Amino acid sequence: MKILTSDAAEMLQSADDILILTHQSPDGDTLGSGFAICRALRRLGKRAQVVCSDQIPHKYAYLWEGLDSQQFTPKFILAVDVADPKLLGNKLSVYADKVDLCIDHHGSNTQYAKHLLLEECAATCEMIYGVIGAMGVELDRAMAEDLYTGISTDTGCFRYSNTTVRTHLIAAKLLGLGIDAYAINRAMFEIKSPSFFALRKLALDSMETYFDGHCALIYITYQNMQSTSAQQEDLDGLTAIPRQMEGVDIGVILKEKEPGAWKISVRTGEPYNASALCSKLGGGGHARAAGCALTGTAQQVRDQMLPVLAEALGVSL
Amino acid sequence: MKILTSDAAEMLQSADDILILTHQSPDGDTLGSGFAICRALRRLGKRAQVVCSDQIPHKYAYLWEGLDSQQFTPKFILAVDVADPKLLGNKLSVYADKVDLCIDHHGSNTQYAKHLLLEECAATCEMIYGVIGAMGVELDRAMAEDLYTGISTDTGCFRYSNTTVRTHLIAAKLLGLGIDAYAINRAMFEIKSPSFFALRKLALDSMETYFDGHCALIYITYQNMQSTSAQQEDLDGLTAIPRQMEGVDIGVILKEKEPGAWKISVRTGEPYNASALCSKLGGGGHARAAGCALTGTAQQVRDQMLPVLAEALGVSL
Ligand SMILES: [Mn+2]
Ligand SMILES: [Mn+2]
Repeated sequence: MKILTSDAAEMLQSADDILILTHQSPDGDTLGSGFAICRALRRLGKRAQVVCSDQIPHKYAYLWEGLDSQQFTPKFILAVDVADPKLLGNKLSVYADKVDLCIDHHGSNTQYAKHLLLEECAATCEMIYGVIGAMGVELDRAMAEDLYTGISTDTGCFRYSNTTVRTHLIAAKLLGLGIDAYAINRAMFEIKSPSFFALRKLALDSMETYFDGHCALIYITYQNMQSTSAQQEDLDGLTAIPRQMEGVDIGVILKEKEPGAWKISVRTGEPYNASALCSKLGGGGHARAAGCALTGTAQQVRDQMLPVLAEALGVSL
Repeated sequence: MKILTSDAAEMLQSADDILILTHQSPDGDTLGSGFAICRALRRLGKRAQVVCSDQIPHKYAYLWEGLDSQQFTPKFILAVDVADPKLLGNKLSVYADKVDLCIDHHGSNTQYAKHLLLEECAATCEMIYGVIGAMGVELDRAMAEDLYTGISTDTGCFRYSNTTVRTHLIAAKLLGLGIDAYAINRAMFEIKSPSFFALRKLALDSMETYFDGHCALIYITYQNMQSTSAQQEDLDGLTAIPRQMEGVDIGVILKEKEPGAWKISVRTGEPYNASALCSKLGGGGHARAAGCALTGTAQQVRDQMLPVLAEALGVSL
């Protein structure tokens, strides 16, 4: 059942022993939402605890600074930024059909929770900001750091098109509480592992351009991932690289997930339709971002891609 | 003479035939400031024209969309974001001692203008926003795009520590005018030349770490610049790379300006003092960012740096 911010606030005000579920492969928004609302609930004298199926990467440690761990039998289950119960992950799957309230900003939310607060805004943290206010809890600096983290990470630091007037107004309020936004952004966006740099170098080495520079391809082979000990997070931003090259209309990233099994990501500028292009190779997606799966050697996969790319650009091979 | 926003607005309201000077190697802030105030002055029925000593890079073309060129003998000289008359460049140096009004946010402003409006805020565009308002001109979308550009570029898209509550409040107002902030940020931050990518690859290839990963060096040789046909703008962001590596406290960029003549940039995290470090090599700067000049081969220059770096870190070579 869909509810309003004021309903969600009332529900939380009368709840106790609240378990807060975040999604697997946790990001700044699910964690920032979880810890901010956890702080607000504890301020009201309640027991509340954030949980996640996966281990939370070290760089997020400041989000729960000062919050000790509480053990209790949960009486109320809250999920934040979790669009689908599948995203709860193995450890939390037991709660999949027991969520009392879900607060989420994904239009794709499967409405699995008993009550759903949904707004299609930039970040769940924007909604948590509203819920905390409606609960009558005054924001402190720690909550502001949590909320800023989610807003900044989900908007690419106010860069993506999901950034709205409200996003900036909330950011202004949070900065007014004296948070160190620079330090947060540095931790979230700048610090990278040695594997990240090693993989980035191999990706740049692999870049090929075609069709007068209108198309660029980069390859991440299975061997590349092994040799650099790269983790999933080290792939951050790679998908954007080909389209950052001046003049490139179609950017393609070929990632070999298992030897000979490739996941292809395609990014296009107007008027080129990535989804239409990928559907010719058995895939699909959105107009500007789509994907497909292909098998073979790097060269074989490229040879399958090139005619489709040429056709999309309206040029001959 | 230092004046207030309201004084600057009155002065511009009673001026006519206004020549607007921007600084050499123009950036988003000087250009955004110049074109925004030019649009506002023309809205008041005045003649106004933005000029720059250097050719303005193509990526900024949207800033003056719809503004035709006007020829007139200037009666009032306005400089925006120009901290020192030296920065006017050759072509505009004739105006160095003729500036009626300077609007600028650099604490280092040399007070060369007859009247100076100075605030130490994130961007001159923040001040122009205030001046346009004080002039009673309603912001339109084109002005908003100009102002957003300066604010976003001078704050690294709201990432740097110069970003304040006011910065976000102004951004909220500008977004409310329907600008395409995503497209602006893409043009300003994402699109790069093939030379940029080629140089970035060489820079990553050259990275060396020392002292258990607490220090990282990258080299940009004269030969690298030649072989990639790199321009000044292709060096964007390179200085930040070494310190982006997890665990690096001191990042060093060695750039060979002419064969055998190196410019060294040092970036440190707390508590390491970059200025103290560079002063040992005849240079200086700020606590977190400093530089010096050295001569020799890459290896000779490195051998001069390493003992000083070891000393700064308090480790043995
Ligand atoms: Mn989210
Ligand atoms: Mn500036």
